[in-house]
Amino acid sequence: MKKIAVIGLGIIGGSICASLTKAGFTVDGTDLNESNVSYAIKNGYIQARAEELSGYDVVFIAIPPAATISVLDTAKFKDGALVSDICGVKEVIEKAVYAKPRNYRYVGMHPMAGKETSGIRSASANLFNKANLVLVHAAQTKEKDVDELKTYAHKMGFGRIVECTAEEHDRKIALTSQLAHIVSNAYVKSEQVKGCDGFTGGSFQDMTRIAGVDEKIWTQLYMHNKSYALEELEGLIEHLNVYCKALREGDEQALSDALKEGRLIRETIKRGND
Amino acid sequence: MKKIAVIGLGIIGGSICASLTKAGFTVDGTDLNESNVSYAIKNGYIQARAEELSGYDVVFIAIPPAATISVLDTAKFKDGALVSDICGVKEVIEKAVYAKPRNYRYVGMHPMAGKETSGIRSASANLFNKANLVLVHAAQTKEKDVDELKTYAHKMGFGRIVECTAEEHDRKIALTSQLAHIVSNAYVKSEQVKGCDGFTGGSFQDMTRIAGVDEKIWTQLYMHNKSYALEELEGLIEHLNVYCKALREGDEQALSDALKEGRLIRETIKRGND
Repeated sequence: MKKIAVIGLGIIGGSICASLTKAGFTVDGTDLNESNVSYAIKNGYIQARAEELSGYDVVFIAIPPAATISVLDTAKFKDGALVSDICGVKEVIEKAVYAKPRNYRYVGMHPMAGKETSGIRSASANLFNKANLVLVHAAQTKEKDVDELKTYAHKMGFGRIVECTAEEHDRKIALTSQLAHIVSNAYVKSEQVKGCDGFTGGSFQDMTRIAGVDEKIWTQLYMHNKSYALEELEGLIEHLNVYCKALREGDEQALSDALKEGRLIRETIKRGND
Repeated sequence: MKKIAVIGLGIIGGSICASLTKAGFTVDGTDLNESNVSYAIKNGYIQARAEELSGYDVVFIAIPPAATISVLDTAKFKDGALVSDICGVKEVIEKAVYAKPRNYRYVGMHPMAGKETSGIRSASANLFNKANLVLVHAAQTKEKDVDELKTYAHKMGFGRIVECTAEEHDRKIALTSQLAHIVSNAYVKSEQVKGCDGFTGGSFQDMTRIAGVDEKIWTQLYMHNKSYALEELEGLIEHLNVYCKALREGDEQALSDALKEGRLIRETIKRGND
């Protein structure tokens, strides 16, 4: 059986370990924080600490972008190993992979799964159940390598798997993930947040669920996807200004038109939970 | 036993009927749309069509603000009847109630419950289970009337009940509900929404769940709460511009500071589902 290693035992790395172990694979893992390794062993997510990376056929790198690039630049992988990463930005990772000759096969992935909490204590064998997964293709990517990664993805529990270029990924994700985190983070800054306990329903809960982003990781993610993230944020502000103007001028028709436009678009969006 | 009538059999009115009927009360209901009345009878939400309002001890008005005001202005309630409404704005309703002599007792309520769908087919006896409820006090409000309404609210399934003035309600709700609906409605207007199926996770689902607002009802709600809604919307845009500027200038420290500020506030918010 192929030997699998996971670098980085946070919520995503830990869940890769837990789900693959549950599916019958033997998985080793490593983390800068020794207590995460102990936790993963104790909970049966991994069999042992991963030592020499050159001993593994498949390696998942589940750490932030800068650290991922550093691993890709310096690690000694086994010849022909399948290497993947889980970063939320892909152009910058691909650039690092293809900047110099490699002895490994690379296919990037981005699990559309997570929680408002992080760390291995938030990991679970079910985190990816039916979640979307994006696999990223470059000109150099071989179809059979993508297929091999897909077999692991299915074992992890992913539902729909889409394939695209790094550029398309980064552009889409600026809307579907990055903008959402900024909006949620900004939403809680209203003066009215104090004492709003008891005045909240599902709308507020949903809007503020992911506000507590880890600023170290997310600053990196935004900076590596600056132009697309900025485009989405500027676009949203522009749209919000339409409602603002309508309210300021007491223009009912303009407000109604703006709301209707959004409703009609919303009705065209397929959603996992509809 | 007290005779209860519900005017308006949408998601909220229908759920008031269903939950009170389930709790053992006899409830009649009425709606401009006859098929909603038939549906409510057939599903056991109400016993019969409510005819003369003057025959009821308790009346819940569960229709949009303008129609609520019209009912309050023209209906003939029984002397001493307890009358409540469920509007999402309260100052304007209270003004209508206290503008002239009344023969009824009034306490306004606002259920912090709903769905992204509307109409009686979305109603259920469990909609209010453990949800927050806001009860609104005026100078004229009698404590015993509030207590009477609370007994019905508990039977409907509400969890936490907070009491406040109409002004406080309208100010808080501008953030916890009204702003959320505008943001969600604006969020889906990005060009990238097309073809984002497969690239979405929980963040996008949460952010866009309530985008499909009924523009007729919500235009009214916003116009009746214009200054507070505008204040929240302008505040959010101002906060979003901080991230925007940081991204545009590539200022990592400013972006990290903005994200950290939001995270720290988020950590202070008590949430129903935490």
